[in-house]
Amino acid sequence: MRFADFSAGQVLVAGPASVDEASIVTFAREHDPQWFHTEPAAAAEGRFGGLIASGWQTCAIAMRLIVDRFLHGSESFGSPGVAYVRWPHPVRPGDELNLRADVLEVRRSRSQPTLGLLRWRWRLTNGDGIEVLDLEVTSLFDLAGRIDS
Amino acid sequence: MRFADFSAGQVLVAGPASVDEASIVTFAREHDPQWFHTEPAAAAEGRFGGLIASGWQTCAIAMRLIVDRFLHGSESFGSPGVAYVRWPHPVRPGDELNLRADVLEVRRSRSQPTLGLLRWRWRLTNGDGIEVLDLEVTSLFDLAGRIDS
Repeated sequence: MRFADFSAGQVLVAGPASVDEASIVTFAREHDPQWFHTEPAAAAEGRFGGLIASGWQTCAIAMRLIVDRFLHGSESFGSPGVAYVRWPHPVRPGDELNLRADVLEVRRSRSQPTLGLLRWRWRLTNGDGIEVLDLEVTSLFDLAGRIDS
Repeated sequence: MRFADFSAGQVLVAGPASVDEASIVTFAREHDPQWFHTEPAAAAEGRFGGLIASGWQTCAIAMRLIVDRFLHGSESFGSPGVAYVRWPHPVRPGDELNLRADVLEVRRSRSQPTLGLLRWRWRLTNGDGIEVLDLEVTSLFDLAGRIDS
């Protein structure tokens, strides 16, 4: 999509993304090596009754869906940050995650007319319809810049 | 560290973590495949004059430093979310990132006395002292649970 294709009020969907034990363990060994992310047997005895994904992996899963479906072919060039991230329920092996993105605001910078700002809310739900991620992020678009291809 | 070792007002430091081009490209190919994260030649011609890391990788780098230095050996079992994330400047190949964590609040849940809550601010700066990450996150500790080892 191009920046011009986004408008406030849009509801965009993508997915599912499949999560398996190997991807949870691989991500966590490198980035978040805590036992409830990396050790299935110990995690089975733990508070969640099984392995759960790092919250940062959950964010990364949403990002990948967003890039493949919406930012590919766009003038996107980065982000200044995220308003909030909530991880209301854990992501587990076998989950199939669906993304819903609500476009909150689309505008051009007043001071830099070729700078587009998109504020949107991303939510992931698992196969039971339970929300596992909720965040609001601003994406930046260089309307005079390269199109992702 | 154990939950009991944290106290409001503490300033904790960790690092450095080294970032190279291969790790930026590898992370982004899987999680955030946009050209300014994955294509060095195109990125060199782009807005930032070179490859930059995915913001989610920057978060993951902070997480790894936090786990290795502070959560290892603790009763940590997860997080409900992040109050905000800011990526004020890009992370580039060759960066050496240092972490500063400011402990904002440490308390036990009123309703669940074995639940410890730690609210802290994590910041990463590069070798020039420029801030590349700023976030505030809540970590949860199960004071009756397993110690990470």
